[in-house]
Amino acid sequence: MRIVEIREVAVHLDQAIANAVVDFSRHTISLVALVSDQVRNGRAVCGVAFNSIGRFAQSGIVQDRLIPRIAAMPPEDYAGTDGTLSPARLARAMMRDEKPGGHGDRASAIAAIELAAWDLKAKLLDEPAFSTVARAFGRDHSIGMHVYAAGGYYHPDDGINRLRGELNGYREAGFTDVKIKIGGAPWSQDAARIEAAIEVFGSAARVAVDANGRFGRTQATGLGRELAQYGLRWYEEPCDPLDYSTLRELSQSYPHPLATGENLFSLPDSINLLRYGGMRPGVDIFQMDAGLSYGLTEYAGIIAALEAAGHDRSQAMPHGGHMINLHIVAGLNLGGCEAYPAVFQPFGGYLPDLVIENGMINLPQQPGFGLEFKPELAPHIERLIA
Amino acid sequence: MRIVEIREVAVHLDQAIANAVVDFSRHTISLVALVSDQVRNGRAVCGVAFNSIGRFAQSGIVQDRLIPRIAAMPPEDYAGTDGTLSPARLARAMMRDEKPGGHGDRASAIAAIELAAWDLKAKLLDEPAFSTVARAFGRDHSIGMHVYAAGGYYHPDDGINRLRGELNGYREAGFTDVKIKIGGAPWSQDAARIEAAIEVFGSAARVAVDANGRFGRTQATGLGRELAQYGLRWYEEPCDPLDYSTLRELSQSYPHPLATGENLFSLPDSINLLRYGGMRPGVDIFQMDAGLSYGLTEYAGIIAALEAAGHDRSQAMPHGGHMINLHIVAGLNLGGCEAYPAVFQPFGGYLPDLVIENGMINLPQQPGFGLEFKPELAPHIERLIA
Repeated sequence: MRIVEIREVAVHLDQAIANAVVDFSRHTISLVALVSDQVRNGRAVCGVAFNSIGRFAQSGIVQDRLIPRIAAMPPEDYAGTDGTLSPARLARAMMRDEKPGGHGDRASAIAAIELAAWDLKAKLLDEPAFSTVARAFGRDHSIGMHVYAAGGYYHPDDGINRLRGELNGYREAGFTDVKIKIGGAPWSQDAARIEAAIEVFGSAARVAVDANGRFGRTQATGLGRELAQYGLRWYEEPCDPLDYSTLRELSQSYPHPLATGENLFSLPDSINLLRYGGMRPGVDIFQMDAGLSYGLTEYAGIIAALEAAGHDRSQAMPHGGHMINLHIVAGLNLGGCEAYPAVFQPFGGYLPDLVIENGMINLPQQPGFGLEFKPELAPHIERLIA
Repeated sequence: MRIVEIREVAVHLDQAIANAVVDFSRHTISLVALVSDQVRNGRAVCGVAFNSIGRFAQSGIVQDRLIPRIAAMPPEDYAGTDGTLSPARLARAMMRDEKPGGHGDRASAIAAIELAAWDLKAKLLDEPAFSTVARAFGRDHSIGMHVYAAGGYYHPDDGINRLRGELNGYREAGFTDVKIKIGGAPWSQDAARIEAAIEVFGSAARVAVDANGRFGRTQATGLGRELAQYGLRWYEEPCDPLDYSTLRELSQSYPHPLATGENLFSLPDSINLLRYGGMRPGVDIFQMDAGLSYGLTEYAGIIAALEAAGHDRSQAMPHGGHMINLHIVAGLNLGGCEAYPAVFQPFGGYLPDLVIENGMINLPQQPGFGLEFKPELAPHIERLIA
């Protein structure tokens, strides 16, 4: 199996939504295709993936550093001992001449290609990626996945009635749990948003809130004191993602679950969270995302590190509500995933033939990640591999 | 003062040297010019800088994210309260729509532009950048800078005599202190390299060694036990840059100075080093580099955090032996800087009219960072701003 060509294109997100930190209408994502020398039904088999959501396309790093490294490599260098494509070896080869540390944009550039290798592997086996993933890591894949609706963004025309309408829509669509943004408005407004969500979903244990890492120690712990009364599902990114000290303080004072990790992009960073962040086994939630963290090989290492530190893999619920993470969550038996029912197109959300019922989604049967079967994404992929 | 245009080009390093982790012959660096609307002697005044050495050019991030953000900004948004260009406000504006955490390639892309703003500021004042820097941070600039020769890389044709010849050359060039690479060869060869360096420089206290962050806990502490006998100047990057736990263990067992930080690219990462790494006030060395860490604004914040944690700013000796760091070290009264007398051209090393004597270098008098006066770099700059 030889990788004949790697193509990459930056695709714009098409919604005008914002959280407490960024406006996503200016965000892009790298869509990547690995063109193989294998032919099925008269067409070259292509592995397709993207680098999750929220950290921009990585066209420069992909084109300037990663593609030339792979092109210079004999195919044996990315084959495993069984002769098939090894995403782990491909990921290692992409790190040639890269220094340790500084896990940022590079991690998501490499992830896009490493994940495309998993899609390619699964397509060559003519099976959905969750099967390939489960087999590779010695798991028995889940038969469905828990999803929660990640919404409640601040909209330009925001008001409590618009939010209530949005949340009712999630309930009607089969979601039992929801996450909304906080920290982008004064507390009285955020409290009203939280209370509306609790009312719609029937219980605070069904409602998570996300502060997107914008707060310092005083604000994060102060907000924790306000939030404690509700008994929410979780309080996400209360502080800067690297501020393990504030997180630890919160883990000792805030009595309900905390969640973090979507802005940690490597195993060494994740180990520091485990060492210093005070995360509680069986309680807190880990949101690292393979698509931002060098791909599935590194991510599986992160899951192993969680378990070695006494946590359960059901505490892992990755950032990024899309098809790639559905396959990873099901293949690795993780706790679930977010869904973006109305946002982050063309990447967000799941295939139209999947059914969300009582907070669970069934598994797709298309080969690979099935991205070609997502109507919003299909034309972009068709253009890329044409 | 308005920034009319921002230009960026990726320039290749032209030497075939390697450390324990990377081969620099495939490395590139972003050279950046901010073209202002100010004219002197019939030419537009341009701020020029680059993103230090070792983490690649960042053409993609600069072109796709940073230049459009600055271009969309009214000039008032990067002016300080006194109406002059504010590198701090420019740096903050470049972070628009960027999430927290993940301090990697982005940090060096922003740094190149932020540093070019300092060059532009100094040129508009017709003074060397160390004066502008010192004034901005309320310091009285140093009158010279300590430099040590950073060399002893592994060469394709390596042998102990070649190394000895190289080190003798540094002595003759006026250096009193040297740093060599270790960890890329078996211990017996590295020991011979270290002993040759001690012999040439007359004392182990003149010789530092750099392992480039390649070792795990067992190897890093094992190497520490071997190195302890010598009483070296410092033992640099004994472990992964994010492995604060191993570093702390070494700080409690290795009796001589440790050095690290060149692969931490932000204030939050630096604070974690201070909190968890066991760095000893008055003993250990901090090597964070403004050119890889969002520029001088963030770097000055890192120096303030060191001092707040009980360290002295003389313990700061940035990675990156080049003109930009000479100005920063002198302007902020830091402990000194490395010099790359023979490597990393066209960026490494200092202006030919500067004299190294007894381990000290005098300060340049050209306006700004004076990069246009470095013969190896001048043609690249001339092409960029032509």
